[in-house]
Amino acid sequence: MSNSIKLAILGLGTVGTGVINLINDNLDELKRRSGRDIIITEVGTRRQRDDIDPDIMQNSDLMAIAASDNVDIVIEVIGGTTLAKDVIMHAIKNGKHVVTANKALLAEHGNEIFAFAEANNVHVAYEAAVAGGIPIIKVMREALAANKINWLAGIINGTGNFIMTEMRDKGRPFADVLSEAQELGYAEADPTFDVEGIDAAHKLALLASIAFGIPLQFDKVYCEGITGITLQDVNYAEELGYRIKHLGFAVRRDSGGSNGDDAGIELRVHPTLIPQDALLANVNGVKNAVLVNSHPLGQTLYCGDGAGAGATASAVMADVMDLVRVLGSKDNDDQSNSNQNNHGHHVPHLAFIPEQLSDTPILRAEQMITGYYLRVHAFDNPGVLADITRILSDAGINIDAILQKPAHKLGQVPVIILTLPVVESQMNLAIEKIEKLNTITDKVVRIRLDELA
Amino acid sequence: MSNSIKLAILGLGTVGTGVINLINDNLDELKRRSGRDIIITEVGTRRQRDDIDPDIMQNSDLMAIAASDNVDIVIEVIGGTTLAKDVIMHAIKNGKHVVTANKALLAEHGNEIFAFAEANNVHVAYEAAVAGGIPIIKVMREALAANKINWLAGIINGTGNFIMTEMRDKGRPFADVLSEAQELGYAEADPTFDVEGIDAAHKLALLASIAFGIPLQFDKVYCEGITGITLQDVNYAEELGYRIKHLGFAVRRDSGGSNGDDAGIELRVHPTLIPQDALLANVNGVKNAVLVNSHPLGQTLYCGDGAGAGATASAVMADVMDLVRVLGSKDNDDQSNSNQNNHGHHVPHLAFIPEQLSDTPILRAEQMITGYYLRVHAFDNPGVLADITRILSDAGINIDAILQKPAHKLGQVPVIILTLPVVESQMNLAIEKIEKLNTITDKVVRIRLDELA
Repeated sequence: MSNSIKLAILGLGTVGTGVINLINDNLDELKRRSGRDIIITEVGTRRQRDDIDPDIMQNSDLMAIAASDNVDIVIEVIGGTTLAKDVIMHAIKNGKHVVTANKALLAEHGNEIFAFAEANNVHVAYEAAVAGGIPIIKVMREALAANKINWLAGIINGTGNFIMTEMRDKGRPFADVLSEAQELGYAEADPTFDVEGIDAAHKLALLASIAFGIPLQFDKVYCEGITGITLQDVNYAEELGYRIKHLGFAVRRDSGGSNGDDAGIELRVHPTLIPQDALLANVNGVKNAVLVNSHPLGQTLYCGDGAGAGATASAVMADVMDLVRVLGSKDNDDQSNSNQNNHGHHVPHLAFIPEQLSDTPILRAEQMITGYYLRVHAFDNPGVLADITRILSDAGINIDAILQKPAHKLGQVPVIILTLPVVESQMNLAIEKIEKLNTITDKVVRIRLDELA
Repeated sequence: MSNSIKLAILGLGTVGTGVINLINDNLDELKRRSGRDIIITEVGTRRQRDDIDPDIMQNSDLMAIAASDNVDIVIEVIGGTTLAKDVIMHAIKNGKHVVTANKALLAEHGNEIFAFAEANNVHVAYEAAVAGGIPIIKVMREALAANKINWLAGIINGTGNFIMTEMRDKGRPFADVLSEAQELGYAEADPTFDVEGIDAAHKLALLASIAFGIPLQFDKVYCEGITGITLQDVNYAEELGYRIKHLGFAVRRDSGGSNGDDAGIELRVHPTLIPQDALLANVNGVKNAVLVNSHPLGQTLYCGDGAGAGATASAVMADVMDLVRVLGSKDNDDQSNSNQNNHGHHVPHLAFIPEQLSDTPILRAEQMITGYYLRVHAFDNPGVLADITRILSDAGINIDAILQKPAHKLGQVPVIILTLPVVESQMNLAIEKIEKLNTITDKVVRIRLDELA
């Protein structure tokens, strides 16, 4: 092997161009840190580009690049889950290491891709797939490698966080902010993936696997978006000392509690009231942040840009720098496969060695435990609060705070109730009963609440 | 080599005991992640302990442990810079990898220790030496490996941050909070290292080296503590939208600006006014946090516990987990030394390969550039503000904000002035002139200010 590391970049959109720019800007830093020349030998692009260094081969045949002898590491930044998958599998088969930013592909097909990579003794690195420039994959897989992860909570969709921030800071309604986000290029023309939480669910599936050592189970993530959040609830939350953020949670529930809680793992994405003074509540705009609670470390927070050319290129190239170190001893690794398994040599794809992934069940929504914010609209009837609180009490739900605003001219008063954590099935039953009260004029609005304690 | 990794722990104080507890608590997690058995074979302790597993050999002869055939990795947690150094050098000489939490030792003797480790082809890992459980060493050396670091700012002394937080939140004076910190065990009986910024300077020296690829230069860190911070200044800062934090800064100044700025690196530890709404301003109590500004990533923040048994043990064992991967291919590494240098195989101790460390000069205090908070006490004379602003203007210092409080009964008014960034030598001259005005009744109080932009 020569002293140069040869990269192929598949896709020259924002991220691919960002990687080229990073390498041009920081060539000296890369070499000073790695002791190697890192060069782009091939790029995969549909149409010939004349702004690319003529020494770099341009090719529209991505499968050919994935098998090229002139490439050590394939960087996949085309996105999507069809062609991207074919190209990555072909690269793996041809003994190439792969770096990808493709969260959807890994969340949905990662188990298969990682197994194929293990079988072919190559790495598939994916720091850029979750929270962009925040090195949360490295942190969870390596820095927290000696900890038992209890839970994590993350702002892992920048578009959603931008919308929630603008609604709160400027009192603007959801639809209005969404339009602006689309104009600014933060949100896609079809914003479903962002505002319905699907993008966050992809990332959460990845984070949960490396936190707990479980296979990727994107289809089991409970997912709720922010389209139903109103300014009214944003403001009531503030008044009570909370802020609404769109968060992904992965929570380990080790064993059944005295109240019959189910053991398993909660994977959920939803709007959440969190305390105003929590750092996570003060992560604004398109920033991402992940809060991890682990034993014995306690809580650590990681915050930065979750998207954009610079942040994503930084993550992609951090993976490349890690691989440069692996490539340095690749020939030797090959020799040693006979007498020991390879897992001591590198960080396992999902943080735990494959044969140690566990089948801990993912809990169903009704089994999940969170606090709640409830907004109940009722006729201004003296007994209504007593009725509501009795129903909650009968269901074993503890009330943490109540805010009853003065009746407005229509004779209705919103009652805001914050509860302590409760199993969702219990809350469902209680809300069903509350909505049957004849003093109640509308559906109960509920938003989950977490003290992040 | 057997499949077990054998650890020796030198020192059974808070941290050493924390490491033992972590291994007991998380044995299953460690094995599931590494595929190896991680066992403690020997501990170094002055007096025999009966609360230690009898399978672990106890020995008061640390040099013997450092050379023991029954040890792969030596964990040094005795502290100090004399015996600790001897033991670490002896372990290196005997081919042991070393994990240490000893910031003072590395800041003062790291260049020598790392060179000796390189020569002996072993690693000296030190995640626990800076900011405890925050994986800032790994983040800077690996996750940001493709970035050019512009600057970093860190709350890297928990005691100092606890004191500043209590002063601000509860309006308590410095001496009062310091006493409490000592009672709580946050501050030593001799608090000099913490409150004078020496501990922070040790950590800053390490962070700056790995940020910029320069040798360790602890003796060149400009260091100012928090003993002079009064409640008066804490309150004025709040009123102006700022908060005073004790921060370590490492700043790269690439080239002389149009106003003749000097190129080089600023290494400085001092109280600093930062914007109230910056996340860093909201990191409270004994928490640590480091904000890194790099290209092309932008700003990322890392926050968590900076000290304590759990956080430190977590960092020590993260280093051990990294080494487990290296040890997996150790024999192969040895073979490959002949035909290529070893730096591709591991992360360089100071992030950059040793022959690429640069001799970029560390700037002297007078060359540093920061904004300032000035508190000037003057007789309530109509011309005094004009005099002060003229002196600043003549020195090329731009005023960002002025706050003049009503005269109190003694006929003196404090004038608070915030300035834009200025070279310290210019500020020194201006303050000298201000203090010579016969309307000025006292020394000018100055605290640095940074917008963290």
